[in-house]
Amino acid sequence: MADKIAIFPGSFDPITLGHVDIIRRGALIFDKIYLAVGENANKNTLFTLEQRLKWLYDVAKEMDNVNVLSYKGLTAHFAKEFNAKYLLRGLRNASDFDYEKTISQLNHIVGEGLETVFFISHPAFSHISSSIVREIIKGQGDVSPFVPEKIHMDLKNNYYKN
Amino acid sequence: MADKIAIFPGSFDPITLGHVDIIRRGALIFDKIYLAVGENANKNTLFTLEQRLKWLYDVAKEMDNVNVLSYKGLTAHFAKEFNAKYLLRGLRNASDFDYEKTISQLNHIVGEGLETVFFISHPAFSHISSSIVREIIKGQGDVSPFVPEKIHMDLKNNYYKN
Amino acid sequence: MADKIAIFPGSFDPITLGHVDIIRRGALIFDKIYLAVGENANKNTLFTLEQRLKWLYDVAKEMDNVNVLSYKGLTAHFAKEFNAKYLLRGLRNASDFDYEKTISQLNHIVGEGLETVFFISHPAFSHISSSIVREIIKGQGDVSPFVPEKIHMDLKNNYYKN
Amino acid sequence: MADKIAIFPGSFDPITLGHVDIIRRGALIFDKIYLAVGENANKNTLFTLEQRLKWLYDVAKEMDNVNVLSYKGLTAHFAKEFNAKYLLRGLRNASDFDYEKTISQLNHIVGEGLETVFFISHPAFSHISSSIVREIIKGQGDVSPFVPEKIHMDLKNNYYKN
Amino acid sequence: MADKIAIFPGSFDPITLGHVDIIRRGALIFDKIYLAVGENANKNTLFTLEQRLKWLYDVAKEMDNVNVLSYKGLTAHFAKEFNAKYLLRGLRNASDFDYEKTISQLNHIVGEGLETVFFISHPAFSHISSSIVREIIKGQGDVSPFVPEKIHMDLKNNYYKN
Amino acid sequence: MADKIAIFPGSFDPITLGHVDIIRRGALIFDKIYLAVGENANKNTLFTLEQRLKWLYDVAKEMDNVNVLSYKGLTAHFAKEFNAKYLLRGLRNASDFDYEKTISQLNHIVGEGLETVFFISHPAFSHISSSIVREIIKGQGDVSPFVPEKIHMDLKNNYYKN
Repeated sequence: MADKIAIFPGSFDPITLGHVDIIRRGALIFDKIYLAVGENANKNTLFTLEQRLKWLYDVAKEMDNVNVLSYKGLTAHFAKEFNAKYLLRGLRNASDFDYEKTISQLNHIVGEGLETVFFISHPAFSHISSSIVREIIKGQGDVSPFVPEKIHMDLKNNYYKN
Repeated sequence: MADKIAIFPGSFDPITLGHVDIIRRGALIFDKIYLAVGENANKNTLFTLEQRLKWLYDVAKEMDNVNVLSYKGLTAHFAKEFNAKYLLRGLRNASDFDYEKTISQLNHIVGEGLETVFFISHPAFSHISSSIVREIIKGQGDVSPFVPEKIHMDLKNNYYKN
Repeated sequence: MADKIAIFPGSFDPITLGHVDIIRRGALIFDKIYLAVGENANKNTLFTLEQRLKWLYDVAKEMDNVNVLSYKGLTAHFAKEFNAKYLLRGLRNASDFDYEKTISQLNHIVGEGLETVFFISHPAFSHISSSIVREIIKGQGDVSPFVPEKIHMDLKNNYYKN
Repeated sequence: MADKIAIFPGSFDPITLGHVDIIRRGALIFDKIYLAVGENANKNTLFTLEQRLKWLYDVAKEMDNVNVLSYKGLTAHFAKEFNAKYLLRGLRNASDFDYEKTISQLNHIVGEGLETVFFISHPAFSHISSSIVREIIKGQGDVSPFVPEKIHMDLKNNYYKN
Repeated sequence: MADKIAIFPGSFDPITLGHVDIIRRGALIFDKIYLAVGENANKNTLFTLEQRLKWLYDVAKEMDNVNVLSYKGLTAHFAKEFNAKYLLRGLRNASDFDYEKTISQLNHIVGEGLETVFFISHPAFSHISSSIVREIIKGQGDVSPFVPEKIHMDLKNNYYKN
Repeated sequence: MADKIAIFPGSFDPITLGHVDIIRRGALIFDKIYLAVGENANKNTLFTLEQRLKWLYDVAKEMDNVNVLSYKGLTAHFAKEFNAKYLLRGLRNASDFDYEKTISQLNHIVGEGLETVFFISHPAFSHISSSIVREIIKGQGDVSPFVPEKIHMDLKNNYYKN
């Protein structure tokens, strides 16, 4: 049977414990997972692409079958290039649902059968989002309950001093 | 009995097959429908007003009772000028609902009784939105499943080559 | 142009001011509206079919183009018999939406193109439902803010004394 | 690596094309899937357990890795007995979401880490539910657009004549 | 200033840790809280009124300002008798929202200004409901993560042996 | 018992009758309420901070226990400085819910137990939002049904003439 390869697409600005939870759960189902940062020229991110990839790499290196990449253009095109038949996504709440439904139908059409597999966030993580983490960082609050240890340390040592 | 005139307001950036579905269904109920592009100085659109109007016109000309217009200011004021007692809107999913409810209550008050009539999108169209079509266009994907043939051809011939 | 006939299907157990609002708004769009009480053997209603039809009739007689009927079986079959190409329904809140979407798609398929036209309840009525009115009646509360005057009087004179 | 076994629990009263879609998609991800009919003494079903199992079997026999079972008691206990670490479920709309979220959290706790994997229904199936199919059957409508061919034929030959 | 008295109405069949969380938070805001079990002749409960009241009492006795009562009829009428100007309710997810909104508007009207104060369930409790606890009990599963210790012990000692 | 102090945080761009409704209801529960305008460097507001504070002050001065402030940084940090153990928020519809749930969980964590108390908007106000009021103002419509009298007068006398 061919390897089951999944893409977990996102901005990861920055990666949160919510993402890590979904990655861990997906890594048990798929043979290989690519954490894939979409480079979107229009989108203003708080952290540079380089920084976001580093933090993703830090998470990925602890798991055997998880890799990190960045890509340009449509997710469905990128998935095809890497022979991935699956996208991996988390659902936190009902507000996420209709958006993710729309995007997954779109990817199914543009990606010619590309499937999206969903996990629902565990309660401990369903209130965590990158946008909220960014607000806390801007407000100089403590993000340790929301992001991996390494990111928290990096933020403490470097970012806050700017 | 006076003519039943409805406005279908929107950005139509660009018009999608989802819009066309709502227009066709509305055209059977109302005596006249105006497809009305709101000119909003603040809003960045992907396509020029001229281009959007052309594509709307292309759809409208195949139906007897559908016209195309652009307007400035509040939709409710515009409706009054054209003697329209109805707005026509599509609902795709529950996420649309609360927004459309709020807007329709607002138009009822500002428009002194202006009514909004809703159709729910058919399944084949409920995942289509202009914003998703724009993303696909930017990513140079194939939008033929989402927009009228004419738009797809225009995009293929002109836009992609830029 | 053929008459535009709409069915407003429901249990109307009992009819509320919320229903009346939707009927009034629909009566301006359609040439004829049938208020149609589905007789469902399995469903326990608080009021008899006869009583519900009487109260509907009381509302309908004040409008030129509104009639009252009861029916058995599928709404889509009933609509066909009466040459109705439209169903009329109100949407109160997002919780209503997914249910009504499902039912309307179903009717479109079973009814071979049968359309459903929706109004969103005005704020003054969006918290009114027959099931809540029934609870108040059972609890001997005052339902005058929720039902037509006539029903309120009938309930006061007869029902409470049982 | 141990086999990835998933349970698809449900009443399947009757199985619909929506279920079949989810089963097909799940069968590509999991090594084995059990379609599992919960026997719930309190619940009134339209079809007998035997009939429901037969129709499930009819669907399952066309796929290599899909089996059919019935069970009593909690889904999480049943999953443990069959060494299944996954539940498979479909999500049709936002209304499904909060319910499925609650149930999946519950199964994660009672099932000591039991995971639920979700697919979102494709548009062609998101308006199909067993409860709606039952209503159509009771109303003697045509369910061919909603259920597998075999079920439709069985219903035509036997059930309608009662 | 007059005492701020709140009613927390419910079936409490049985009380869960989710209820306890809301009670604790409410007890800091209100001078007095009545946990009020609505006696509804039509509603089949798993536990007797007496049993449910006992368990509520067990929770209430650890808090200074929380009492337990049962009542018949409308909540709004009961609140008036006890001079309570507030209802206390928890919201777990978006599905709860529209229902609670409708009920709270109703109580505001029937209760002539009766207010409902809401807390949103903490993540650790938002997947707990009495109906799910009942399912687990019927399936002879372990409900210790969902109910107060005392209830869990009672269930273990008595109920399971039936 | 210590004073119960609540913060009502927001942009108030501008304050609406919906806000006023929540403030009035909150003022009966809490000993003191601070209307707190978050100064967010990134956010473009229609009205200056000074103007928004003036209008808030105009509302607050009619209530004994309501004060007005502006703050920078995280709401949770600000609440701590002012010894406020509560946030006060209104919920208008299901779309608001998941957002408010996420924010309130966040504030509970960052604010070390900071509680959020919710009222659900009354029907007369649930379609009012500052963003809609801003659209009407930009479109030179009449906002008198949506904002306090004083604001409406100010807008009429000054703003429209620009």
